[in-house]
Amino acid sequence: MIIGSRSPEKARRVAEEISRLTGRRIMGTDNRTAVRLAEIVVLSVPFEALPAISGEIRDEVAGKIVLSVIVPLRFQNGDVECVRPESGSAAEEVARLLPGSRVVSAFHTVGAKMLQEIGSPVPCDVVVCSDDREAKMRIIGLIDHIPGMRAIDGGPLKNSRLVEATVALLIELSRMYRVPGVSIRFEGI
Amino acid sequence: MIIGSRSPEKARRVAEEISRLTGRRIMGTDNRTAVRLAEIVVLSVPFEALPAISGEIRDEVAGKIVLSVIVPLRFQNGDVECVRPESGSAAEEVARLLPGSRVVSAFHTVGAKMLQEIGSPVPCDVVVCSDDREAKMRIIGLIDHIPGMRAIDGGPLKNSRLVEATVALLIELSRMYRVPGVSIRFEGI
Repeated sequence: MIIGSRSPEKARRVAEEISRLTGRRIMGTDNRTAVRLAEIVVLSVPFEALPAISGEIRDEVAGKIVLSVIVPLRFQNGDVECVRPESGSAAEEVARLLPGSRVVSAFHTVGAKMLQEIGSPVPCDVVVCSDDREAKMRIIGLIDHIPGMRAIDGGPLKNSRLVEATVALLIELSRMYRVPGVSIRFEGI
Repeated sequence: MIIGSRSPEKARRVAEEISRLTGRRIMGTDNRTAVRLAEIVVLSVPFEALPAISGEIRDEVAGKIVLSVIVPLRFQNGDVECVRPESGSAAEEVARLLPGSRVVSAFHTVGAKMLQEIGSPVPCDVVVCSDDREAKMRIIGLIDHIPGMRAIDGGPLKNSRLVEATVALLIELSRMYRVPGVSIRFEGI
């Protein structure tokens, strides 16, 4: 695994920490190099940073799977809300900014703090959306390897807007109930 | 239980059918009379019909619990989306149109078809929002009596916008998977 950052020093520091915690070899470098070396690019950046980061990596993503976990949130007066980007969703915005990449969207409903509990299963469903069927199946296969997680095919990339719209509720509930994260299981599927 | 409708004949017909199916005495009448006789008013109407219905019942709801299950949805070109009313949510719109009533919002994430399976438990969580704590607790108590359901205190009425925003995904998933309804369980609470 390779971690990219605008600050290569920060990437290396975090990579060392994760290597120590997981016992796996993780490498830290700048964004452009990270994307060049990667097979699957996980785009986990604030929505506002998307234009700048896309500019950095645009020339390196052609033909690669780009996994967007981005949720366009707005925090205002103590409230949290999902905002709707002009292109419909963060994932569609990624597709617009990174033409030639194979955009898949997933993991929105899994809180970062839940994933930090290394070694614990993460009991939740993850909805996966993409217009690239093969790329989507690749990500669904990876998710199904994570203990506790179930991948759900959520259809085309434009459906990402429906998934992104659920995240504000999960953040608000985890805030209200003072828990590290609230995730979703779907009943009936 | 009393069913109100703009068409009292329709209300009586449906009331008879439900009486037959459930073995309970159900009455059908016009909206105004139904609200006058009711202790808790369940407002289950299309969002677009809200202004007209509110006008009919406004004088009868003072001090009563009004339960909004309304989701402001838009169906367009085969897509479904939740729209945001100017007041923030359907529930806040109900509060604006029916001042003096005690508005609670709940049941958004439970599909009508799931509730029609009389006698079957309905496995799902129901988020309940209100600015009236006593009214909210009353509804939470009722939900916890329904086999399979768990009520979750979702905080103030304005949080209803976060709950309403999740429904389009559930409708889309039930359409994609051709199931009568998809509901939510929250993990971590």
